[in-house]
Amino acid sequence: MDRSRPIGVFDSGVGGLTVVRALMERLPLEGIVYFGDTARVPYGIKSVATIEHFTAQITEFLLRQDVKMLIVACNTMAAVAAQVVRERAGTIPVIDVIEAGARAAVGTALAAGIGVIGTPTTINSNAYARRIHELEPGARVYSQACPLFVPLVEEGWLDHPVTRMTAQEYLRPVLAEEIGSLVLGCTHYPLLKPLLKEVAGPAVRLVDSATTTAELAAATLQALDLASVRPQRPEYRFVVTDVPLRFQTIGERFLGRSFGPVERVDW
Amino acid sequence: MDRSRPIGVFDSGVGGLTVVRALMERLPLEGIVYFGDTARVPYGIKSVATIEHFTAQITEFLLRQDVKMLIVACNTMAAVAAQVVRERAGTIPVIDVIEAGARAAVGTALAAGIGVIGTPTTINSNAYARRIHELEPGARVYSQACPLFVPLVEEGWLDHPVTRMTAQEYLRPVLAEEIGSLVLGCTHYPLLKPLLKEVAGPAVRLVDSATTTAELAAATLQALDLASVRPQRPEYRFVVTDVPLRFQTIGERFLGRSFGPVERVDW
Repeated sequence: MDRSRPIGVFDSGVGGLTVVRALMERLPLEGIVYFGDTARVPYGIKSVATIEHFTAQITEFLLRQDVKMLIVACNTMAAVAAQVVRERAGTIPVIDVIEAGARAAVGTALAAGIGVIGTPTTINSNAYARRIHELEPGARVYSQACPLFVPLVEEGWLDHPVTRMTAQEYLRPVLAEEIGSLVLGCTHYPLLKPLLKEVAGPAVRLVDSATTTAELAAATLQALDLASVRPQRPEYRFVVTDVPLRFQTIGERFLGRSFGPVERVDW
Repeated sequence: MDRSRPIGVFDSGVGGLTVVRALMERLPLEGIVYFGDTARVPYGIKSVATIEHFTAQITEFLLRQDVKMLIVACNTMAAVAAQVVRERAGTIPVIDVIEAGARAAVGTALAAGIGVIGTPTTINSNAYARRIHELEPGARVYSQACPLFVPLVEEGWLDHPVTRMTAQEYLRPVLAEEIGSLVLGCTHYPLLKPLLKEVAGPAVRLVDSATTTAELAAATLQALDLASVRPQRPEYRFVVTDVPLRFQTIGERFLGRSFGPVERVDW
C-alpha cells in the first residue's frame, strides 16, 4: 500500500479533533482526512441501529478518499459500531478510541480500580468494561455516565463553578471506590482535564483517549510498515455534513490551532 | 373541512410534548398526531438550510396524516423555518410557539421590558424580538441564549444547585434590565418554571409558550369553525424517527402522563 495515503479519522462532530490534535503532534508526517457528522450530532443519545447506519455511511465515504488507516475517534461509534467499520474496511487497519483507552488503563493501574466516564450510550454499552476485562480479567471497573460534560465543554465553561460542581457530583460514586486511574471515555473530556484532575485528586491518573489513540496509531503504522516517510508538510482535510461555521468556531478550541478551509458534503 | 381530523404537532424531539400536554388540557376533544424527530435532535445547533430541509420533510409527513391544523412546537423550527411550513400547508392553518409567545408577552408587560430566553439558534434568529416589535413597536426586548438548559432538563436536574447556579448566570444580564416578563422560548423550559420563578423573583411574570400556544390554537379553531364537537375520547398518536425507548422515558416527564404505543418512521 502507498504509505503517502492519508489517515481517515471520524467522529459525530467536533470531539474527534482532540484525536487529530494528538495525531498531528505524534505523527507530524501523516496526512489526515477528518470527517465530522455535524448535521446529525450528537450520537450519544441515539439508538444502536441509527448509529450503525450513520457509521457505515461515513466509513464508506472515507474508504473512497483512499485512506490507509481508519480511526474511530467517537467513543459512541466505537462502543456500538466498531464491528461495522471493521467489516467494511477489509484489509485497511482500524483503530478505535475504546481499544486505545482500555489498553492504556490496564497498563497503568492494575492494583487499584479503574474509573470510566463517558456519554450515556458509551457507558450503557459497557464497551470499556468489557474490553478492560478481556485484557485484565481481575480489573475492578467503575463506570459513570456524565451527560452534561459535552454541553458544558461546548459552552466553553472549562473552568467554571457550574462545571466543577457537576464534576463533583458525577465523580463522587467513582472516587468512593479508590480508583487509581480514570479513563476519559469521550473525546470532549480532554478539554476538562485540568478541572477533572483537581476534582479527582493527585492519586488518580487521567487516561486521555486522544493521546492513547495517537500512540496506538503510531505503533500500528510502524508494525504494518505504513508510516509516511515524506519529509514535506502533510495535507489536512476537514469534511463536515452541516455548514461549517459552528464547527470552525468550536473546533479551534479542540484542535488548538486554526483551520484551513472546511469542506461540506450534503447527504 | 372535517372537524374530527386531528391536530398535527411537531418538534425536533421530546420538548413539544409540553405543548401537547397544554393542548390536551385546553382542548380535550381534539385528536393529536405528534411528530418528534428524535433521530436528528437537537436542531438548536444546526444550520438554517438543514433545519429548513428537515422541517419540510416533517410538514409533508403530517399533511399526509390528514391533519386540520399544524402546530410548530419547536422554537428553533418556528424561528427559522415557519415560512417553509406555511408554504406547504396551503389552506391548513399553521400556529407556532413564537407567534403565541410574542403575543402573550406583549399582552402582559407593556410598561416594563420583556426578557426572552431560548436555544442559541432561536435567540440568534431574533425571531421573538422581531415579532414582539411588530406587535408593539415601543417594546424593550432583552434576549439571552441558554444552551445548557436543555441538557439540564434532560438530565432531570429540574431543582438542582447546578441548574440554579446556571440560571443565575444566564439570567443576570436580562434581570439587570428590570424586565416585567420573561418568555420561555424553548419547549423544554416549562419544566424549569419553579426554579426560574425563584431566580427571576416575584416581579417577573413567566410566559410559558406551551400554554400560550394551546390558547392560540383554541382561538384559531373557534374562529375557523374547526373545533371538534365529538364527545368521545380523542385519539393521540406519537411518531418518532429513532427507536422510542428514550423518547418514552424522558417524554413522560414532559407529557405529565404515560404514553400509549409510540410509532417509528425510518427515513
